[in-house]
Amino acid sequence: MSRRTADVPALVAAARDGQPRAVARLISLVEDASPALREVMATLAPYTGTAHIIGITGSPGVGKSTSTNAVVRAYRARGLRVGVLAVDPSSPFSGGALLGDRVRMQDHALDPEVYIRSMASRGHLGGLSWSTPQALRVLDAAGCQVILVETVGVGQSEVEIAGLADTTIVLLAPGMGDGIQAAKAGILEIGDVFVVNKADRDGADATVRDLRHMISLGEAGGTGAWRPPVVKTVASVGQGVEDVMAALDQHVDWLTTSGTLRSRRENRATEEIHAIALAAWRSRMEGVGSGQAIAELAAAVVDGTTDPYTAADQLMGALS
Amino acid sequence: MSRRTADVPALVAAARDGQPRAVARLISLVEDASPALREVMATLAPYTGTAHIIGITGSPGVGKSTSTNAVVRAYRARGLRVGVLAVDPSSPFSGGALLGDRVRMQDHALDPEVYIRSMASRGHLGGLSWSTPQALRVLDAAGCQVILVETVGVGQSEVEIAGLADTTIVLLAPGMGDGIQAAKAGILEIGDVFVVNKADRDGADATVRDLRHMISLGEAGGTGAWRPPVVKTVASVGQGVEDVMAALDQHVDWLTTSGTLRSRRENRATEEIHAIALAAWRSRMEGVGSGQAIAELAAAVVDGTTDPYTAADQLMGALS
Repeated sequence: MSRRTADVPALVAAARDGQPRAVARLISLVEDASPALREVMATLAPYTGTAHIIGITGSPGVGKSTSTNAVVRAYRARGLRVGVLAVDPSSPFSGGALLGDRVRMQDHALDPEVYIRSMASRGHLGGLSWSTPQALRVLDAAGCQVILVETVGVGQSEVEIAGLADTTIVLLAPGMGDGIQAAKAGILEIGDVFVVNKADRDGADATVRDLRHMISLGEAGGTGAWRPPVVKTVASVGQGVEDVMAALDQHVDWLTTSGTLRSRRENRATEEIHAIALAAWRSRMEGVGSGQAIAELAAAVVDGTTDPYTAADQLMGALS
Repeated sequence: MSRRTADVPALVAAARDGQPRAVARLISLVEDASPALREVMATLAPYTGTAHIIGITGSPGVGKSTSTNAVVRAYRARGLRVGVLAVDPSSPFSGGALLGDRVRMQDHALDPEVYIRSMASRGHLGGLSWSTPQALRVLDAAGCQVILVETVGVGQSEVEIAGLADTTIVLLAPGMGDGIQAAKAGILEIGDVFVVNKADRDGADATVRDLRHMISLGEAGGTGAWRPPVVKTVASVGQGVEDVMAALDQHVDWLTTSGTLRSRRENRATEEIHAIALAAWRSRMEGVGSGQAIAELAAAVVDGTTDPYTAADQLMGALS
């Protein structure tokens, strides 16, 4: 009930003023697909577009939380407001409100200039929540200059995170497999910066060498192309974090001067508009004749009295 | 050119007559999204719906090809016509026509009652090709009484395969991790029959026990619900294959008597009709103003002069 009557302009003003509870409330509104969702998005729009969105992905055990913490600390040392969105596609729980936010990142729990939010994926296994881009917009409009989106590399999620981020960090650890494994998992294509964490362990140099080799094989070449650096860290003791920051700074410079930042964001907006429109078409199709139309067409396909293409034509015709 | 002039009714008649070249040609037509695709699907429709579609999925190294071979052999011993669709989501190549089909399954390469086809996924990493369901329809109409769809368990593909199949076999091997790993990977929900292959290795009984325990935790219970069996095999020597066949037979019986076969197929047809219609909407949206409309809307979202929901409304309005 209180959600229906949310005073969206007041909430947005409070969020921009740096009030964490207003930010949390807005994220809840978009995450719950509340009736206010569209008003929230329309009200936020003029304030979006300034945050540098950094995706961090990697297999379980490579040290994602530790690395995220270290990068947050480094941006905080520069005086920037930082948002952290931790997306756990394997969690059946949403919001993470009970434990997640505070337990995950105790170092920054009391810092009012760091917003931390855990989100679970909903609806599609292995993928990011459909509300992740909307939550990013909330943090962006709330004045976060940097937003880190952390997700475990499971299935599609690492590819999806690359679609959401301006810069994608792929984390690996020695002994997690060689470059060929990385190539098979599809992570070579998505990484803008590769970090081999736990570099005090055996095999770190071999992992770095393998990665560099695989990256060089996949390079498009050409002047002005981005060549993803491979950085070694021991995030737990802060070692190498300055190299990660330097790589991130260089990538931002390159994104801006090459025009890639703009084109990536336009591609992302295109995908998002399409996804929203397709969800709306789908909901309309399911609603034709209160769902009777699609049920009858599906039965006809199973019976062999029609085929799925003809059935799709009929369903679309019923909407025009 | 020859594709445009394909004599679809003659090809379908030849395929139903058991001519492998006609089957191969029809699959190529649907795989290439040729102009004849719709005619092929419409012509095939009356002959579909008889095949039992069995999905086989599992991580690399569990012995999928060997197990598929063993199951094919068992169905051939019953005198059934068998189709095999090997989907490799990690392969950038399509069709597999050069090597794949013959190399994969040498045991059955010369058997005219076994159709073997390799397909690569297209367009979406980790997922099945959009043309997989159409290829299944071709094999179904060509008189295959059983069709095995084999895919490596990468990301989404194992979930998608479960959506395509009447019965899904999940293959595991000892030491591939315990039941909790399986639960995390989401495979407990999709398996109708679990097979622990390489059961002569250490830890097979522990894997079986873990799996049974995890399955029992997830059971909906209730009379008449299917309880996924866990079977041990050493597929390379044929050991345990008769137990797999018994489990498959029981599942077919249950599917039929419980009405689940019909409802699964109707759900599948619904998804397929929706997917085809959504692809058509998407292509229409991309075509509005020769793509200028979406480009301008995406730019406006990036500039913050509109939000993605309002942009989606405008794009949809332009189509009505």
